[in-house]
Amino acid sequence: MTRFDVVSLGNALVDVLAYEDDDFVVRAGVERGTMMMVDAAHSDAIYAEMGPAREVSGGSAANTAAGIASFGGRSAFLGRVADDTFGKVFTHDLRSIGVHFESLPANDGVPTGRCLVIVTPDAERSMCTHLGAANRLGPEIVDEAVVAGAAVTYLEGYLWDQPQAKDAIRRAAELAHRADRRVALTLSDPFCVERHRAEFRALVESDIDILFANEEEITGLYEVDTFDEALQHVVGHCEVAALTRGAHGSVVVRGEEVHVIDAHPVPHVADTTGAGDLFAAGFLYGFTHELPLGTCGRLASLAAAEVISHLGARPEQSLADLARPLLEG
Amino acid sequence: MTRFDVVSLGNALVDVLAYEDDDFVVRAGVERGTMMMVDAAHSDAIYAEMGPAREVSGGSAANTAAGIASFGGRSAFLGRVADDTFGKVFTHDLRSIGVHFESLPANDGVPTGRCLVIVTPDAERSMCTHLGAANRLGPEIVDEAVVAGAAVTYLEGYLWDQPQAKDAIRRAAELAHRADRRVALTLSDPFCVERHRAEFRALVESDIDILFANEEEITGLYEVDTFDEALQHVVGHCEVAALTRGAHGSVVVRGEEVHVIDAHPVPHVADTTGAGDLFAAGFLYGFTHELPLGTCGRLASLAAAEVISHLGARPEQSLADLARPLLEG
Repeated sequence: MTRFDVVSLGNALVDVLAYEDDDFVVRAGVERGTMMMVDAAHSDAIYAEMGPAREVSGGSAANTAAGIASFGGRSAFLGRVADDTFGKVFTHDLRSIGVHFESLPANDGVPTGRCLVIVTPDAERSMCTHLGAANRLGPEIVDEAVVAGAAVTYLEGYLWDQPQAKDAIRRAAELAHRADRRVALTLSDPFCVERHRAEFRALVESDIDILFANEEEITGLYEVDTFDEALQHVVGHCEVAALTRGAHGSVVVRGEEVHVIDAHPVPHVADTTGAGDLFAAGFLYGFTHELPLGTCGRLASLAAAEVISHLGARPEQSLADLARPLLEG
Repeated sequence: MTRFDVVSLGNALVDVLAYEDDDFVVRAGVERGTMMMVDAAHSDAIYAEMGPAREVSGGSAANTAAGIASFGGRSAFLGRVADDTFGKVFTHDLRSIGVHFESLPANDGVPTGRCLVIVTPDAERSMCTHLGAANRLGPEIVDEAVVAGAAVTYLEGYLWDQPQAKDAIRRAAELAHRADRRVALTLSDPFCVERHRAEFRALVESDIDILFANEEEITGLYEVDTFDEALQHVVGHCEVAALTRGAHGSVVVRGEEVHVIDAHPVPHVADTTGAGDLFAAGFLYGFTHELPLGTCGRLASLAAAEVISHLGARPEQSLADLARPLLEG
């Protein structure tokens, strides 16, 4: 028996979202469509130039945790917030959607992390993250009982940028496997893959059962030119891989079983923030409910479609309601 | 020569918005479509029951100030925030849209005010406000140079719930009239009118040049049964009255000049929060640019339509861009 379907481990962040033009992204010095780490002063400087914003809880793995709960899954999150306003907002938003989140808030004066999300007219998002309290995330965040009691432990590749967080990832993976559970990882960001390619490859080969990546990340990981070549590599290393291709849909593989899933139709794409996070949520909800692999992929596409139809990276509609026709049909 | 078109005086609040069902509003003890004042503990208790929320700067008169700036008007705001996260968010969001806001943040340990906004499936909003730092707003907030330099001083009726804020209103009105400027007031809320009817009537008769109210507020003020009766009263007291009737549009009067304005079409009403605030913004932008009264009313409807088409009470599109066809046509 498991207590949770999925426990997600990642950076606890509040997103500060604003629509800006393409020039703004250039001036801010961010590579379009990616995430850049900045310090507090740099974050403040970019914020001062941003237009009116809205604040919505974010953080990649936390978005996934919220998505799983929205499907009706048993979801837990491990991450580091401060005992401040944004920490309270982050905690409220996770708990109120039904996510188990009991990591103690830190009191060392470092504020809860924030991610400035610049959304351009093409709905692409470019992000500047100031990790704040999340920067000190270490292995002590890994609640052994929660990890051992979760069918899947889901890890965020972004964590690899912090030395102590690597230890947290390794500890979580070890505890999960010792309890005979599955370990999932998202590669998070192409630049993140570039920074940590060798370590990521070793991790994927030895510790990861379920891998999430987009096309750029997976080809970057294996330093190959085509999606298909990358696919051949990953099949040998992971039990399952779920690879996204933006508007071209996704490919989900388990050994020789391959499903090519169309992107779920979206009348108007407002903001692509959280697309990958919610894709993982839908997939893991299906996977932990032992649904056929193709259905897992379709749930993934459905969840990604909901989140890109509005500003912000958390679901605004009940994913359980949206999924009902697919699951009953 | 004026330095500002409009200076707005009101409660500085950050809105915490969530979609909830009608039962939630009943359980929270709020009268649908109105604003209830709550203390910190009550606010926290309702927040704990609310679903995932988003934070957007709000405050009635501050929303109007943001709207005027979005039209391209010269806009200033006077209000009281604390030196905390929500205070910084509020300040950022006003300044970044071009509003002059230089009121010093308070450091007395009372946090920036927040308004829990419960949006029901019919797009109606019910609000629970914890004033926080705004509760100590007094006459010292009234920057004499700003008021004397603004063509219109716009006052929020909600302020009437705080004794010291009444003094701020009276001081602002006196300074404005001494500088030969106009004074505008919104009645804010039907319950607010009920609480302060006699004082509001005296204020309207003696100090207010431009009055904003909705149907329920204006009939409540004069204790009459019909909109038309209320209209006859107000014409004798104020130079201009701009009275809204929700989906039925609005009526704008100046002496014997009467304009009946249709509501601007909205494909999908998402959240009525800020409709009255942005109506006032459009009207005052037109008024201070000496546009015909009917055009002022149409700009008002246009701004209200923009803000009810999305969640949150601040404009998301440039009102100057939206108004261009109307102003050039």
